[in-house]
Amino acid sequence: MNYFAKIKYLGTAFHGFQVQPGLRTVQGELNAALNQAFGKTCRVTGCSRTDAGVHANEFCLRIDCDGATIPASKLPIAVARFLPEDLCLFYAEECDADFHPRYDVKEKEYLYRIINRPIYDPFEYGRAWFLSRPIKDDGFDRMNKAAEHLIGRYDFSAFMSEGSDVEDTVRSVTALSVVRNGDLIEIRISADGFLYNMVRIIVGTLTEVAFGRISPDDIPEIIASCDRSRAGMTAPAEGLFLNKVSY
Amino acid sequence: MNYFAKIKYLGTAFHGFQVQPGLRTVQGELNAALNQAFGKTCRVTGCSRTDAGVHANEFCLRIDCDGATIPASKLPIAVARFLPEDLCLFYAEECDADFHPRYDVKEKEYLYRIINRPIYDPFEYGRAWFLSRPIKDDGFDRMNKAAEHLIGRYDFSAFMSEGSDVEDTVRSVTALSVVRNGDLIEIRISADGFLYNMVRIIVGTLTEVAFGRISPDDIPEIIASCDRSRAGMTAPAEGLFLNKVSY
Repeated sequence: MNYFAKIKYLGTAFHGFQVQPGLRTVQGELNAALNQAFGKTCRVTGCSRTDAGVHANEFCLRIDCDGATIPASKLPIAVARFLPEDLCLFYAEECDADFHPRYDVKEKEYLYRIINRPIYDPFEYGRAWFLSRPIKDDGFDRMNKAAEHLIGRYDFSAFMSEGSDVEDTVRSVTALSVVRNGDLIEIRISADGFLYNMVRIIVGTLTEVAFGRISPDDIPEIIASCDRSRAGMTAPAEGLFLNKVSY
Repeated sequence: MNYFAKIKYLGTAFHGFQVQPGLRTVQGELNAALNQAFGKTCRVTGCSRTDAGVHANEFCLRIDCDGATIPASKLPIAVARFLPEDLCLFYAEECDADFHPRYDVKEKEYLYRIINRPIYDPFEYGRAWFLSRPIKDDGFDRMNKAAEHLIGRYDFSAFMSEGSDVEDTVRSVTALSVVRNGDLIEIRISADGFLYNMVRIIVGTLTEVAFGRISPDDIPEIIASCDRSRAGMTAPAEGLFLNKVSY
């Protein structure tokens, strides 16, 4: 049987999604739990790799398990007791044999959380980027102006870390919002796909815009340069959440 | 100098507030950080003991440090870099020599968080009581009826765990609300003081009311009995937050 499933995880104690020998990964924990629930070996294919420390509110995957007898609707409960506390599988349905959780993605949304206050909040540890330097109203307005320049179909290689072997670096950013609610700044970004570290470099760039080190009007030029050194820093993994995946 | 201060902590990795030899406690970590910030030994007095695993959104205390030169307004920043990530001091002001953070309390508010859904949420681990059995609308209504019976000035010894040497077991519960928001049930309870495990036993009792094991109309009789065995179970520590302290 082939299942389409959705999982959720707190990334803090995982070395990312993908199985790596000797390291605790989401895929590794999931495989172990599924093998126990089904009593046989299953294969898991994810919708993306996520880095160490990155979280997921919704991460989609495909589970292949020959001769499986657990109905899709019962899978979340069946697997729950074999999963660790920082990972849950909350939805499953049967899927076609030709469905691919990565190649069939139409759009993904990431959420990046920044806590902007002088004193750390213990309840937010590992779940947000803690920025103690205040982002003032004009800095926040500049972030929003810069965000507008990032929406569109561009070669985003200036916003890609080294270490990726992807050839086509053109992506369509369809939405990018920066919303402040008290000390919390939430940045949401949707695209048809993302380059390596793209969201974290966009967020790092937006904060440098907030602090005046980059002007919002420089963004089109930075994109056009295709030069990583022109964009801002890479924001830390802990503030990043894969939020929604559309097919 | 004497300071009145407010702290916040995630209780998961603490063995409660009060110093205990060989165990990691909030008071122990706080003492160590203050001694480093001030370069001398300080004394910390808390507004209450809290049990292992219990959290605090606002816990008040007094800090005594002879010859201290750090102004109260600078104390949060001065101590921040010596504190662990699950504890912060977010407010301080100078206080009178005769102020007592425990005896001078007028009212305390506790918050208890229940997550009521079949599948666990990894982001809520250790921060709520996970109840998989659904509380239906009529069960929720019964919880609210029972809550009304618990408001007032009573001998609450039926809602007190053994192991306390307190003599006067009369307390005034001034407010008790049960609010549902999706899968989250928040119970807020205010009183002039609380007996040992009183909030957790009240919450445990309310859930037994929700599931029909105790009737809301039995509450007055249970209170009057002063018999711990008549009340419900003790809800787990992880859902409990000291939320507000008034002087």
